[in-house]
Amino acid sequence: MNSIPQFPTLMADVQSARDHRSIGIDEVGIRAIRHPLLFRDRDGTAQPTVATFEMYVSLPPEQKGTHMSRFVAILNERVHELSIAGFGALLRHTADRLESSDAFIRVRMPFFVNKHAPVSGVASLLDYDLMLDGRIENGKLSVMVEVVVPVTSLCPCSKEISEYGAHNQRSHVTVRAWLADPSLCVRDLIDRVESEASSELFGLLKRPDEKLVTEQAYDNPKFVEDMVRDVARNLCEETRIERFEVSSENFESIHNHSAYALVRGRPGGGAAD
Amino acid sequence: MNSIPQFPTLMADVQSARDHRSIGIDEVGIRAIRHPLLFRDRDGTAQPTVATFEMYVSLPPEQKGTHMSRFVAILNERVHELSIAGFGALLRHTADRLESSDAFIRVRMPFFVNKHAPVSGVASLLDYDLMLDGRIENGKLSVMVEVVVPVTSLCPCSKEISEYGAHNQRSHVTVRAWLADPSLCVRDLIDRVESEASSELFGLLKRPDEKLVTEQAYDNPKFVEDMVRDVARNLCEETRIERFEVSSENFESIHNHSAYALVRGRPGGGAAD
Amino acid sequence: MNSIPQFPTLMADVQSARDHRSIGIDEVGIRAIRHPLLFRDRDGTAQPTVATFEMYVSLPPEQKGTHMSRFVAILNERVHELSIAGFGALLRHTADRLESSDAFIRVRMPFFVNKHAPVSGVASLLDYDLMLDGRIENGKLSVMVEVVVPVTSLCPCSKEISEYGAHNQRSHVTVRAWLADPSLCVRDLIDRVESEASSELFGLLKRPDEKLVTEQAYDNPKFVEDMVRDVARNLCEETRIERFEVSSENFESIHNHSAYALVRGRPGGGAAD
Amino acid sequence: MNSIPQFPTLMADVQSARDHRSIGIDEVGIRAIRHPLLFRDRDGTAQPTVATFEMYVSLPPEQKGTHMSRFVAILNERVHELSIAGFGALLRHTADRLESSDAFIRVRMPFFVNKHAPVSGVASLLDYDLMLDGRIENGKLSVMVEVVVPVTSLCPCSKEISEYGAHNQRSHVTVRAWLADPSLCVRDLIDRVESEASSELFGLLKRPDEKLVTEQAYDNPKFVEDMVRDVARNLCEETRIERFEVSSENFESIHNHSAYALVRGRPGGGAAD
Repeated sequence: MNSIPQFPTLMADVQSARDHRSIGIDEVGIRAIRHPLLFRDRDGTAQPTVATFEMYVSLPPEQKGTHMSRFVAILNERVHELSIAGFGALLRHTADRLESSDAFIRVRMPFFVNKHAPVSGVASLLDYDLMLDGRIENGKLSVMVEVVVPVTSLCPCSKEISEYGAHNQRSHVTVRAWLADPSLCVRDLIDRVESEASSELFGLLKRPDEKLVTEQAYDNPKFVEDMVRDVARNLCEETRIERFEVSSENFESIHNHSAYALVRGRPGGGAAD
Repeated sequence: MNSIPQFPTLMADVQSARDHRSIGIDEVGIRAIRHPLLFRDRDGTAQPTVATFEMYVSLPPEQKGTHMSRFVAILNERVHELSIAGFGALLRHTADRLESSDAFIRVRMPFFVNKHAPVSGVASLLDYDLMLDGRIENGKLSVMVEVVVPVTSLCPCSKEISEYGAHNQRSHVTVRAWLADPSLCVRDLIDRVESEASSELFGLLKRPDEKLVTEQAYDNPKFVEDMVRDVARNLCEETRIERFEVSSENFESIHNHSAYALVRGRPGGGAAD
Repeated sequence: MNSIPQFPTLMADVQSARDHRSIGIDEVGIRAIRHPLLFRDRDGTAQPTVATFEMYVSLPPEQKGTHMSRFVAILNERVHELSIAGFGALLRHTADRLESSDAFIRVRMPFFVNKHAPVSGVASLLDYDLMLDGRIENGKLSVMVEVVVPVTSLCPCSKEISEYGAHNQRSHVTVRAWLADPSLCVRDLIDRVESEASSELFGLLKRPDEKLVTEQAYDNPKFVEDMVRDVARNLCEETRIERFEVSSENFESIHNHSAYALVRGRPGGGAAD
Repeated sequence: MNSIPQFPTLMADVQSARDHRSIGIDEVGIRAIRHPLLFRDRDGTAQPTVATFEMYVSLPPEQKGTHMSRFVAILNERVHELSIAGFGALLRHTADRLESSDAFIRVRMPFFVNKHAPVSGVASLLDYDLMLDGRIENGKLSVMVEVVVPVTSLCPCSKEISEYGAHNQRSHVTVRAWLADPSLCVRDLIDRVESEASSELFGLLKRPDEKLVTEQAYDNPKFVEDMVRDVARNLCEETRIERFEVSSENFESIHNHSAYALVRGRPGGGAAD
């Protein structure tokens, strides 16, 4: 490690100069930076994953620039572990260290659940895309959790009009939950979605499992509209959520495009807002 | 073409059934569908491109499903040409044909400008990512135009502290403009961004051109914060815009991540909201 | 347009200097450049599309650099229309203009076919990903055409073991055909793939069409292994192909991963090599 | 865990049926499956990462289908840790368990190096894209390692012809090394690339570091052709490699496309083949 005797004091600090355009910056910082960490969810154990961060603060009109290197320093010095419950502390630290009233952090990562096949019980991991999106604005903290749950959807119309068979496909059900209570876990959201699908997915299925999920999907057909309504109804029971959005993108097996639906709602106050 | 004597009347119309969950759907339709079309902008000529559509309507609580095939029919029957000015008509037609009070269409496409190199004058195309995002809600039309303008940014700090050279890189300046007046053209937005960059980009540069853009960028250093402030100030003069967002993502040549800044503003009422 | 009196003669031509490392360059040029063009296929009409090019030549050990701007000039001056039959001329022109013995061009574009639904006959476009990959090496021209054909696959095992239903999904069947005869058309390859799928896809289906494709897929189950074997057998009848690869990626509706298979073959000489 | 008394013996095993098309399958298995693991490289410690796998075997003409679930079982039962040295054992186990003469595994993952800034010495992680591509064919094992090293490139022509400044940008230097000796480490390849760039990249730089890398890049200009030649010359000294490919994609800061070059070579036998 080289020593750096007098450099920093002599070099111009351009970013700290005064700005005269009278335009405040809503968000400024870094993005597209990958960082390995341990993510802790419902079962208490911490799973290793690789996250991609966006980290911003706001900047008042009179300040020329932010301190970009501090964001990277925060990641390298402090972010070894993360959880929904601990996300607020990271936001607060970022606002403090960057000397800003606001902080915005969006972090995406794959998340794994060890699932058991429904008949044989064999275990395998299933992967989900997880995003935490948090903000402190004027001192007020809010956190949104987004998880993409891949499921099977089977078309009720195709089943009804056909003498046999029914087209089905993989669908991505995306839940965005704005939290009222940070004790909510990712697994809680995943469970609510999977219980409403035509069938849930598994990494590993034996033949008896495959028979079961095939028949289960056929017994449980859902339009993309049904999927989002049923998940929305289910999410309305989750009181740790302030409001939510649920969408489903069905990668139609009979088309080369997707069917899509989205519902916004809030527990207690009825599903649609 | 086969004839289809009595099928439609005999087959169950599952989508039109009554729904009992009391949950309205905010958006339902198709997405990820590619469609070739002619896009007409400022110079009046129509350029061929390939667009990717999202098309949605809303659905009242009592209706089980929408008519997915009608969205595809609209594209195939009517969407041969598109422009900002003509986007409202497509939204209205979609709402009417799907018998909905609301319609949402998001369409992404590459957009080309034939540019002339600054010294040699040689012509070449430059490509931009364009998105139109329109909505009719309760009869009210609003249109947002997003264009990603690739430019050069050169770091003022690096220039200031170094005895020679300065790191520079490609940046994506993204403007989102909510329109007050649909006579605005994509080219108008591109011009405003390119005039504020350290340097604009070209497909084809001869050596005298390369000398000019290199020196121009060095003479015109901009932090990511400067870029969005200067574009914001410029956009404030565009009265056909109701409000805007401008962001810049600098793909830093000295890091493996991006620097990013975003400003929201509105012409007349000052830059920041 | 500015005049450029004496610049070019005075400026150093660094690329043309002599190189002393004794290392020839296998491929050098430009990539990730988008360019609109008309693509002409079987029916003779030219469809507008937007292509993304890679264009390279080789460089002998003694030459320091290639002339990057000439590749862009070729695109802007000459590439307004393209076809499989005309691809060789573009490769030869590139080698000539860059003064190289070799030229390599890879161009990707969406390709559209206007299809008619199987019962109702309603027309709609379906999109395919097309790539032409051509090379001139030591004066010898070879062209490979790759097309990704999205289809439905239905699982024979799931059908066999389940009392009702069968999981099915969208699959991407990718054919790579090294041409013996440039009169081959993209449509010829697409037709051969679609005739072997559990069912082909359509942009727009009415209910009677949906009934037909659902039952057709159930009547015609295929493992990923069956799909590539059946397409390979079909391609063996196409004598304008010297050799081929066919793969299928099935986006399994019961898993969150894909099943995949690939066969290499050549007409006449048997399917597997 | 449910018990599964007699199911498996009663259910048809469709995949094991005899096939009559006389077409062997070159590759069959699973792809696009994500799996967390520990990757062990030069310093002996194991870093957590998330990998994406492709796993295939070959299938003789007479066999109808492979056993897809066994690939997933291998991942879940055995793949908790991976290294270049241990990759051969995974390939052999896969061939054995799938009862095939051949096995092909391609695995992609982000890889991190903890780097120290050149003047201040502050530490930060830098991320690289890593791929291992291994195959056993007819009993013979071969392993290729690909790593994408992001660096700075500065244009010699722009520097030469301009009175001040020079355009520079982030570049991706990709090395593909076919191994002669599995003791090679990813870090060894990265070091060889970074030592040849105009400048290497860092996650975190203080002002004195930024001054140094800016001036270093200006002192060390490289065309895309120079970059691949210099890395090729360096790789020729690595005797644990049988042959290699090195390419560089420069995301030009004055264009919206990339410059690209590629060299193939082998240590000992001279750089170009």
